[in-house]
Amino acid sequence: MTKDKKNKPSKDLPIGFVDRQEKELLVRDFIISNIKEIMIKYGFQYLETPSFEYTDSIGKFLPDKDRPDEGVFSFLDEKKWLSLRYDLTAPLARYVAKNYLEIPKPFKRYQLGTVWRNEKPGPGRFREFLQFDADFVGTKNLLADAELCVMISEILEKCGLSKKEYIIKISSRKITEELFKKININNNEQKLIALRALDKIDRLGWDGVRQLLGEGRKDKSGDFTKGANLSSSNIKTIEKELNIKTPDSEDLSEIFTIFEDYGFTNFEFDPSIIRGLEYYTGPIFEVNLKFDVKNNKGKIIQFGSIGGGGRYDNLVNNFGTYDAPATGISIGLDRLVYALMQKKEFNVKQSKPVVICTFDKNFMKEYISLQEILRKFGISAEIYPGESKLKKQMEYANKINAPAVILYGENEIKLGKPTIRDLSTGKEKSIEIKELANEIKKII
Amino acid sequence: MTKDKKNKPSKDLPIGFVDRQEKELLVRDFIISNIKEIMIKYGFQYLETPSFEYTDSIGKFLPDKDRPDEGVFSFLDEKKWLSLRYDLTAPLARYVAKNYLEIPKPFKRYQLGTVWRNEKPGPGRFREFLQFDADFVGTKNLLADAELCVMISEILEKCGLSKKEYIIKISSRKITEELFKKININNNEQKLIALRALDKIDRLGWDGVRQLLGEGRKDKSGDFTKGANLSSSNIKTIEKELNIKTPDSEDLSEIFTIFEDYGFTNFEFDPSIIRGLEYYTGPIFEVNLKFDVKNNKGKIIQFGSIGGGGRYDNLVNNFGTYDAPATGISIGLDRLVYALMQKKEFNVKQSKPVVICTFDKNFMKEYISLQEILRKFGISAEIYPGESKLKKQMEYANKINAPAVILYGENEIKLGKPTIRDLSTGKEKSIEIKELANEIKKII
Repeated sequence: MTKDKKNKPSKDLPIGFVDRQEKELLVRDFIISNIKEIMIKYGFQYLETPSFEYTDSIGKFLPDKDRPDEGVFSFLDEKKWLSLRYDLTAPLARYVAKNYLEIPKPFKRYQLGTVWRNEKPGPGRFREFLQFDADFVGTKNLLADAELCVMISEILEKCGLSKKEYIIKISSRKITEELFKKININNNEQKLIALRALDKIDRLGWDGVRQLLGEGRKDKSGDFTKGANLSSSNIKTIEKELNIKTPDSEDLSEIFTIFEDYGFTNFEFDPSIIRGLEYYTGPIFEVNLKFDVKNNKGKIIQFGSIGGGGRYDNLVNNFGTYDAPATGISIGLDRLVYALMQKKEFNVKQSKPVVICTFDKNFMKEYISLQEILRKFGISAEIYPGESKLKKQMEYANKINAPAVILYGENEIKLGKPTIRDLSTGKEKSIEIKELANEIKKII
Repeated sequence: MTKDKKNKPSKDLPIGFVDRQEKELLVRDFIISNIKEIMIKYGFQYLETPSFEYTDSIGKFLPDKDRPDEGVFSFLDEKKWLSLRYDLTAPLARYVAKNYLEIPKPFKRYQLGTVWRNEKPGPGRFREFLQFDADFVGTKNLLADAELCVMISEILEKCGLSKKEYIIKISSRKITEELFKKININNNEQKLIALRALDKIDRLGWDGVRQLLGEGRKDKSGDFTKGANLSSSNIKTIEKELNIKTPDSEDLSEIFTIFEDYGFTNFEFDPSIIRGLEYYTGPIFEVNLKFDVKNNKGKIIQFGSIGGGGRYDNLVNNFGTYDAPATGISIGLDRLVYALMQKKEFNVKQSKPVVICTFDKNFMKEYISLQEILRKFGISAEIYPGESKLKKQMEYANKINAPAVILYGENEIKLGKPTIRDLSTGKEKSIEIKELANEIKKII
């Protein structure tokens, strides 16, 4: 027996992956349909790229590679490496490079899709996410950057949030670029380590970030993250400069003017936002929720942003043929759904069928005729799909939260009068078949 | 230069993967929303399992392993192998085994999701598919099997097909099982090779299948597929028995009686259908389209089925704890969309924004106010997002199939009267701002 058990396949999921239930999925569908409606209104085109790309097409811009050569799921295929995409931006750049002559310029596209990160497994770190992205490719016009912020704001409000419940934080990569120049960091590797460190201000606070800018940091699990090895005076300069309140940036000034023209005020300048990805070149933005979010143990957590983005003017020309400056935004849909479900009641239509109980296989035709009547009126209904007696059928109906059961045994069939039992009150009623749909509608 | 070019990343997609465009995606969304509506009406619950599973949880039931150890995309993770799912049924069995005590019994669930097959790359063989599945788990009641066929039929008709345009073919694995017994094949490996051979009747005809049942077959590319090594008299027996017109099967008789009770006639018994997957144990069904489908070169192709399924009574108890007989159906959504788009015009709402041309950044506020008016009325609209002069703006508007452009230069702004140009007629009209939405509605 023990030996047998050893050979049984695993019932568990790999760490970082989860099963999702109906309520969450229906809320997600509702949010996605809102997003799609807004995408059409804003004039973005729907596109879908595949999950796999050649590794070299998307491989160079990976955020936060804690372990070398990991971070992505890669696969050797006929002598060339394939990778599962880790975001939707790098595949878009590949798509634009490939189809440059055919696409409109500028090119506005949106995409919904799963992305994967082969992160160091750990509690609460997922390795599969559903993302929504919208991008403008082939334009330096900062109207595009501004519109992405206005648009995400419209999406969040359509999903039920008020202006008090979220904020768009804005900065520019040019600010950190200037700062690195000022303190003489020229080494690209060192810059990247410093950027990744600054990206963690939210999570670690300045204490942790100072370690990461310096000699490095050991986390709770004992793992050590290499630091940028900056001098303590340089670290002080960075901290001071990133605490400024007004940006010294032409780009940001122009965007703020456009915001004014839109009447959009739900943003703030925050030079401490960085965004992890290496490819940003100009304005960057981050969407933060301003209400408490709890984990599944009911404890309020540091939730972080639900998305963000920025300008990446060099991603397409990495492919060596065309120059296409671009800007885009990504929203983590799983995170957004998770937070929204804590804030709001969503009246999504879950599948709760009326159960038609079965007494005898010979009456199948009669059961089917009742089911047919209900379904014709769009009422969710099913004939009990198992093989058990009435008691178990009632247990089943309760388990699936059926609003009612229909009892149609030999006597009822003779009279042509099914009995309805309302499962919330327990009350029964014998009715004419022609009243069936109406009576059920009163209950559901 | 040549050297430089060598280092540029690839712009192409790996073989077997494709980019999908707006029209196809919107048709797919339309079909998916029909499916979801029907799922709720039939009382199925929405579930989503992740892309990855432990390889041992799903690894044993892979169809058509032409190359050993391939067929799935697998990744070594902390000493345990993970695989991308190759269908939605094996992960469902894992889910049921894991959550058996919590779920209703029977358990009816539907799922939409991508599946991957690491097939031998070749023209027209995709390695990523979007699938829709519905399953009944924990019941031997053949009402379940029958209802899946009635349900898929309702889905296809809701998507616009008539009864003449599709058929559900039905058989039972028990028929081939009896047949193998009759001709004394007991070797499991040999049975599998024979089943896979029979599964190809549609594609290869009996000539090819006879080779695969015998010594093997060399395909056009020169690749050799191992045969089942049956004697020629046994092959003859199989061919004869699989050409019967009436089933000798209690299960199928019961299902056909239920079909009669449903008034469902759009099926036929076809003992030559097999379905590739190893795990089926009873009734199996296949959904076939009855109209010509062309490839992208306009040539009529042997399209095959758009989906199917069957009963798999032993998949859950492979996990060693619970017994949960089950039946389910899978639809290949990409294939269904591909075929339907050839048969029907779908009036999906593509993103075709009215373009507000820009003359001077100083008028941004005025452009934004026009855009705001249109979007408030739900009209797709955008301010030209690029940086070029009017001529290029008009080229852009034509390229994206904009229905109209709005011209609002210095003079128009002074008068408060934008000019609308209808891009299908070329006609221009100067209008009051308060008439803007109404006038645009006449054009779109």
